[in-house]
Amino acid sequence: MTSRAHWPVVAIVGVGMIGGSIGKAVRARRLADRVLGIGRSAESLAAAKKTGCVTDTATDLAAAADADLVVVAAGVGAIPALLDAVDAVIRPGTLLTDAGSTKASIVSGWERKRRSRRGRFVGSHPIAGSHRRGPAAADSDLFAGRVAVVTPAKATPRPDADAIGDFWAALGSTVYMMPPREHDRILASTSHAPHLIAAALAAATPPAARTFTAGGWRDTTRIAAGDPDLWADILLDNAGEIGDSMKRFAAAAEKLLAAIERGDRRRLVELLTRAKDSRDALGS
Amino acid sequence: MTSRAHWPVVAIVGVGMIGGSIGKAVRARRLADRVLGIGRSAESLAAAKKTGCVTDTATDLAAAADADLVVVAAGVGAIPALLDAVDAVIRPGTLLTDAGSTKASIVSGWERKRRSRRGRFVGSHPIAGSHRRGPAAADSDLFAGRVAVVTPAKATPRPDADAIGDFWAALGSTVYMMPPREHDRILASTSHAPHLIAAALAAATPPAARTFTAGGWRDTTRIAAGDPDLWADILLDNAGEIGDSMKRFAAAAEKLLAAIERGDRRRLVELLTRAKDSRDALGS
Repeated sequence: MTSRAHWPVVAIVGVGMIGGSIGKAVRARRLADRVLGIGRSAESLAAAKKTGCVTDTATDLAAAADADLVVVAAGVGAIPALLDAVDAVIRPGTLLTDAGSTKASIVSGWERKRRSRRGRFVGSHPIAGSHRRGPAAADSDLFAGRVAVVTPAKATPRPDADAIGDFWAALGSTVYMMPPREHDRILASTSHAPHLIAAALAAATPPAARTFTAGGWRDTTRIAAGDPDLWADILLDNAGEIGDSMKRFAAAAEKLLAAIERGDRRRLVELLTRAKDSRDALGS
Repeated sequence: MTSRAHWPVVAIVGVGMIGGSIGKAVRARRLADRVLGIGRSAESLAAAKKTGCVTDTATDLAAAADADLVVVAAGVGAIPALLDAVDAVIRPGTLLTDAGSTKASIVSGWERKRRSRRGRFVGSHPIAGSHRRGPAAADSDLFAGRVAVVTPAKATPRPDADAIGDFWAALGSTVYMMPPREHDRILASTSHAPHLIAAALAAATPPAARTFTAGGWRDTTRIAAGDPDLWADILLDNAGEIGDSMKRFAAAAEKLLAAIERGDRRRLVELLTRAKDSRDALGS
């Protein structure tokens, strides 16, 4: 495979499961000469280097001055401040992206100071993950066959958006470009509202009933085991869209419940069939 | 292992995934000399025999006259009529049970005619399943390490309830005894409401958004792929308890949403942590 995407030095700020997987994927595909992991914990960085996620490490953000491309792979709540801090130290013209689960506030935070920025930032969200944490769980194929959304702002030069799109494509993802708000609207229904729903279901199940759960409850509540701090930031950052998604969900649940309470079997089968068709469209 | 549980002939009415697994489990544990599969489809019965689920087959319910124990493994909507039909042909005193997902209406349907019954029925619900269907998906270890609920009525003789409990225990399950209504109340929160919630989420997700789903949405909606006819019968049969469960779920979802909309991070983290604790109590 010959790839258009190559950068002498890729820096990854935050080398957890996602950041570590980006590093491994970049190395496995030879997209960079050096992969520099930047983080706060020397111990975690050592683990990331030992497991092959990165070639070099630094605990000082100033090391990002060496990078041609910087990927900020931190929780949504930490990304805006990290972008500001990275922008203060990089060489002018350096390309930046992130891997956060929300995009509108991150992108608009960058855009508000666009004129004074040194770097060229384009927001990203690789839609891939794992319940596992840390660089030891990193996987060089995490993004292969998955979707990555790239969210240029109105003022983003097209070549910058394309360069970030090429980066995720080189990691094996199918790349979609869309405005940040559109991304957040869609992810509210496919990820953020489901998280709220799974958490509500887990919380609403009486502890004494847990003995009598089977695969259905386990599947439906699995994501409720996600990190509460990381998820609080995501949910708070997309409150409006999540509220809208929850209204659509509540209306669908109300329709099902009304058919159950009326004893309207024909209508209930029709609604369950529609839900099954929606689910079957994706496979197991 | 020496088991107290042994029956010369066990008949299974309905040899799908559940019935077939019961047959395979009975055979693997040598709990019967013969396992008789009774069903409508000669083809499906032939498949059940070929894959070792049963030793004998019959398309006529009258064959149940040979049985010492009859297990009705059909959908909840079909069980009451099958119990009546089986009771009309069995030898007086034959033990009967079922494997239905609801218990109150099935047990009370039997109890209403208790005085004129030939058989001794005790309701059961082995809490185990698979999204796969048919005898080809049968698994002799489906019930091992799982929970089975046995639901005697007030008038059920204790030895009959114990005999059915011994049956499921011999298949490897941990057996709980409780009144049918208590079973239905618990299962509303651990199985029936989750099914409604998964279906509502699948139905409420716009088709155009499906490209942007990941593991979270897939897990949360997985059970929405279940058979609409089977599930309609379960949901209709437990409407009252499901309504109560959905109220508890809606209250939990409303608390989360209110914290999100108020921007109350501390409260949101607290609620998500409580949900995570509930989920973590069960493992992945």
